[in-house]
Amino acid sequence: MVAPKEFLDFVDNNADAFIQRLGEAVAIKSISGDPACRPEVFKMMNWVAQKFESVGVEVQQVDLGKHIMDGQELQLPNAVLGRIGNDPKLRTVLCYAHADVQPANVSDGWDTDPFTLTIQENGKLVGRGSTDDKGPLLGWLNVLQYHYDNKKPLPVNLRFCFEGMEESGSEGLDELVVRESKPGGWFEGVDCVCISDNYWLNTSTPVLTYGLRGLAYYKLNVSGPARDLHSGVFGRTVHEPMTDLIRLMNTLVDVNGKILIPGVDDMVMAADVEERKLYEALDYSIKDVEQSAGAPIALSDDKVEVLMGRMRMPSLSLHGIEGAFYGSGAKTVIPAKVSGKFSIRLVPPQTPENVLPFVQKHVDSEWAKLGSKNKFELEELHGGKPWVTDINHWNFQAGKAATRAVYNKEPDMTREGGSIPVTLTFAEALGVSVMLLPMGRGDDGAHSTNEKLDRSNFIEGTKLLGTYLYEVAAIAN
Amino acid sequence: MVAPKEFLDFVDNNADAFIQRLGEAVAIKSISGDPACRPEVFKMMNWVAQKFESVGVEVQQVDLGKHIMDGQELQLPNAVLGRIGNDPKLRTVLCYAHADVQPANVSDGWDTDPFTLTIQENGKLVGRGSTDDKGPLLGWLNVLQYHYDNKKPLPVNLRFCFEGMEESGSEGLDELVVRESKPGGWFEGVDCVCISDNYWLNTSTPVLTYGLRGLAYYKLNVSGPARDLHSGVFGRTVHEPMTDLIRLMNTLVDVNGKILIPGVDDMVMAADVEERKLYEALDYSIKDVEQSAGAPIALSDDKVEVLMGRMRMPSLSLHGIEGAFYGSGAKTVIPAKVSGKFSIRLVPPQTPENVLPFVQKHVDSEWAKLGSKNKFELEELHGGKPWVTDINHWNFQAGKAATRAVYNKEPDMTREGGSIPVTLTFAEALGVSVMLLPMGRGDDGAHSTNEKLDRSNFIEGTKLLGTYLYEVAAIAN
Ligand SMILES: [Zn+2]
Ligand SMILES: [Zn+2]
Ligand SMILES: [Zn+2]
Ligand SMILES: [Zn+2]
Repeated sequence: MVAPKEFLDFVDNNADAFIQRLGEAVAIKSISGDPACRPEVFKMMNWVAQKFESVGVEVQQVDLGKHIMDGQELQLPNAVLGRIGNDPKLRTVLCYAHADVQPANVSDGWDTDPFTLTIQENGKLVGRGSTDDKGPLLGWLNVLQYHYDNKKPLPVNLRFCFEGMEESGSEGLDELVVRESKPGGWFEGVDCVCISDNYWLNTSTPVLTYGLRGLAYYKLNVSGPARDLHSGVFGRTVHEPMTDLIRLMNTLVDVNGKILIPGVDDMVMAADVEERKLYEALDYSIKDVEQSAGAPIALSDDKVEVLMGRMRMPSLSLHGIEGAFYGSGAKTVIPAKVSGKFSIRLVPPQTPENVLPFVQKHVDSEWAKLGSKNKFELEELHGGKPWVTDINHWNFQAGKAATRAVYNKEPDMTREGGSIPVTLTFAEALGVSVMLLPMGRGDDGAHSTNEKLDRSNFIEGTKLLGTYLYEVAAIAN
Repeated sequence: MVAPKEFLDFVDNNADAFIQRLGEAVAIKSISGDPACRPEVFKMMNWVAQKFESVGVEVQQVDLGKHIMDGQELQLPNAVLGRIGNDPKLRTVLCYAHADVQPANVSDGWDTDPFTLTIQENGKLVGRGSTDDKGPLLGWLNVLQYHYDNKKPLPVNLRFCFEGMEESGSEGLDELVVRESKPGGWFEGVDCVCISDNYWLNTSTPVLTYGLRGLAYYKLNVSGPARDLHSGVFGRTVHEPMTDLIRLMNTLVDVNGKILIPGVDDMVMAADVEERKLYEALDYSIKDVEQSAGAPIALSDDKVEVLMGRMRMPSLSLHGIEGAFYGSGAKTVIPAKVSGKFSIRLVPPQTPENVLPFVQKHVDSEWAKLGSKNKFELEELHGGKPWVTDINHWNFQAGKAATRAVYNKEPDMTREGGSIPVTLTFAEALGVSVMLLPMGRGDDGAHSTNEKLDRSNFIEGTKLLGTYLYEVAAIAN
């Protein structure tokens, strides 16, 4: 059962209208991280609710309560739940996307107003949220539009979970997902989940994503003097917290990315020949990573090593130091209390819980070696487990079949180096297969200036989402 | 020739008036580092000029031109030059002080308004500039007041150099000093210089200061990616500038303050038994340094080691990192360009010029060892030479005699760990002995909250400055 040709034609014929509707969505400044924009996020969620209602979806906005941001108490944006279809003979697919966006100002370096969708001659649709994640969200709406306008039955039952806080930690969403996954909830009976909120590896080959790294974030707090000291008066008379901290931070990772905390890299089994072949097969080159980083700084000339470094190995990054001098110029301060920030991206079987003892033991032992009279403590900040799922599940077979049908290509099977925490929440709360089915390309610049979605990715991506639903319906259990 | 008893009595009898006048000076918010306060600095210099004129000093305000601060062009505060006495049979003493102050806000943690001199019951005169450096500047005015009111001749010819930019790099002053030291200039014929702008080692023993450390300030610039990267996407795929920088910074100094750059510590001869005795003799304990640092973090339990660490050894402090994440919270950024800031406090024979090659060679060699594909450069920021002078000069003999006369104590002979760059300028431009004769105590908190000058230090300090002039006149060449 492939998607009907009428559906594919409908999408092509309505492309301009779909793009105009994406422009409407981009024009709403739904920046979840800016308290001043909170009314715009509410407006955005209303817009989403109204659009999905207009194509026959039963919709409910859910109050997620309040939270504190920048010292003020704010109402969280409503989540939008939706359902259409209740045929027990059909599979039920849950689709997730988010309607909030990252901040954007022309002064950041945008060539055009970030909240006016600009259609370039090369087919790029430039605007904040175009690819992250309003384009994919509207992809589902476009699919529904065909079925509603043409009174065609959907091949599956659909459930929707749209949020307005993804860019600000998805506050309140985990509780909602857990609650609605229980009997009687909106997600009861869901057979699989499809999330469209990530990207292709490159600019030409579609991907299905089956893994995400987790995260463990740490602070190394070193303190000594009661207040900042003058380096003229105190230099070489007291133990300086910065000196101690730099020596500790130096013991965490080497220049080639190898994690120096004993035991952490060892938790992950080395890839065997078979697994290396998976990475060898990906449409990817060292040029791709260097192009996206903007400099020839790849850790290896071997694409398999670089890909495994991102996808199936943990990584440790040093982010910065809180409490030290950070301005321009030449301040001669001895900072009294400094906190080194670093995080480890985790892969199975690592979790924040099972990695912590290794980190604690290592930093305690390195600290003891220093013999400083300053004070030290390790502080663990937020974290999240990694996620990897079975790529042989029918959910992924459907994704592959849909990709072949729309793009005439075999999709690359990828794991992401970053985290989308709600993925794991869905997987654990529902106990079903979750697949990430991205719409955009690797160079879309989500979170960056001049974020874009290619017109072809929006239009073919809409076809992909629709075709995927038909393939889910077609593939036998 | 000791100071006349009438002078000492006059100071005691006029103590309250002197303190009230200090209150007038403190009330003028002459913060040289705050462009909004620039008119107050001008007002302060006018006030100084007018007060010194009122006691018979010939005064000239000198326009030092313009400079750029916080992106705006500003007129530099005038310097105030003064002279009184032209008797070729008398020695000529040049006195330096500054009338500008550090910023201060109640919100920084002051217990009282920083610009209202508050007289505490314990005798502390609390206010911004009380000890740094309005108290000492007014000390000279108090001395002149006695001679003017009582029509007493001064024992020496006096020259004054007062500035309003000391806390902001003394811009324009070096050129002025060099110019006025030439024949026909205001400082022609000066036999010695006295600067009152530092502090006792502790709270009970007066000091004469004969040395200052110099400074060489460096930036280690490491750059790689074209923009900040997401650690999820790029962690363990590219060389991270922060990792490289931390490894470089780790090679500079050890936890015990030893400088690890080969050759730098070696430039300074070890102290022999005789020199160690100088430090052994100082009225100072490990408790003193730990009290002023606010924690038991001294590098050694041996007071001689700690004192030599501050006074006669170079020190290297790591100040911070520009370009890295410095906020609170948990940002998962890979910064694209980071600059590690560190400085070395220099002692003779070190200079910024002769230390630079050691630093350059070391960081270049350490960078090469790393084998990173990122880019690195060493950048040298401002610097200044150290200064040490002969403590057997008659200028210091006069200082010692005055201290004995006023405090009934032998002064501690100290070197300061910090820098007062104008000291070296005077020494080099005039080729005469410069002595630092501080008024305040080691716990005065210059540059900190609740800055204070003890009433007894202001009053006895005034006697000390006056007595010093009489001793200069008395001691044979
Ligand atoms: Zn997103
Ligand atoms: Zn995003
Ligand atoms: Zn000062
Ligand atoms: Zn000062």
